Amino acid sequence: MGNQPGYKASKDQLLNRLHRVEGQVRGVTRMVDEERYCIDVLTQIHAAQAALDQIALGLLDDHVHNCVERAAPGERPEKSDELVAAVGRLLKR
Amino acid sequence: MGNQPGYKASKDQLLNRLHRVEGQVRGVTRMVDEERYCIDVLTQIHAAQAALDQIALGLLDDHVHNCVERAAPGERPEKSDELVAAVGRLLKR
Amino acid sequence: MGNQPGYKASKDQLLNRLHRVEGQVRGVTRMVDEERYCIDVLTQIHAAQAALDQIALGLLDDHVHNCVERAAPGERPEKSDELVAAVGRLLKR
Amino acid sequence: MGNQPGYKASKDQLLNRLHRVEGQVRGVTRMVDEERYCIDVLTQIHAAQAALDQIALGLLDDHVHNCVERAAPGERPEKSDELVAAVGRLLKR
Repeated sequence: MGNQPGYKASKDQLLNRLHRVEGQVRGVTRMVDEERYCIDVLTQIHAAQAALDQIALGLLDDHVHNCVERAAPGERPEKSDELVAAVGRLLKR
Repeated sequence: MGNQPGYKASKDQLLNRLHRVEGQVRGVTRMVDEERYCIDVLTQIHAAQAALDQIALGLLDDHVHNCVERAAPGERPEKSDELVAAVGRLLKR
Repeated sequence: MGNQPGYKASKDQLLNRLHRVEGQVRGVTRMVDEERYCIDVLTQIHAAQAALDQIALGLLDDHVHNCVERAAPGERPEKSDELVAAVGRLLKR
Repeated sequence: MGNQPGYKASKDQLLNRLHRVEGQVRGVTRMVDEERYCIDVLTQIHAAQAALDQIALGLLDDHVHNCVERAAPGERPEKSDELVAAVGRLLKR
């Protein structure tokens, strides 16, 4: 358990992380409003992006374990295709 | 004006975009809470990430035009270094 | 067939794409050697990166369809974990 | 000198790194040809991508210090715009 990869998350953990990202984005809004130094704002945006990436990985992990693995054999290829297409969108942003 | 690149933004435009991102992230939270289909949640996360990327580019644009270009010549190299380091962080997420 | 997503690729197609990327990287080397304008070199690097992303998606697609789907049920979770970890590395670059 | 960021590079260093990337891409081609395990091939693609990112940052660094900073004041905004547009392409891959 102790060495689970960091992206594995229960629903509650995902929700906690999302609340934290909401706070980070509000923080960015405040920094822009206060005309803080661009580079500091960029650092904060980067933190929000990295947190969203982890959340996205957690959802992918959930999808592959709960949708792809457990799908009826005949539905699995379609679930797999959806997964790869989703990864393609994430890579291209 | 009409053919400005999409990332150029006034402070008001940046704030509007950030408010929209806040709404997108809250939407993701809601979708996770309602246990919506992972792939749909990922699409929504991707939209928030793409919006944050545009905002980050708008801030970089501001930094290079207002901090690098207008810095005293002796301070310009440092401002430039900060810019490249910030891009490096964004690329690595 | 006609509307396969662009990343799906046979072994021969993957090899062709990789040969093209090899040519693109040699092109970048030549441009740096000839001290061509940085921005033009960056455009060429970007083309090589985009091609590598497509190749990576093709391999992920192959992995999910041929390793995850067809694994014995008891081995599937491990194959899935490998997949998500690989996506995590690609996202972080 | 010792604590230069890793992306700063002379022309010779850039050329060396590019030769290494050429070797990495040839390695990927060989692995695909030998039908090596997808996940191992992905790890190798990731290494090539990360190396190209560092090279791209080195070129951006060169551009901002040598083109933006040293441009005649009237030409600087255009050089800056080129830089931000190039970053935008890299982020979107």
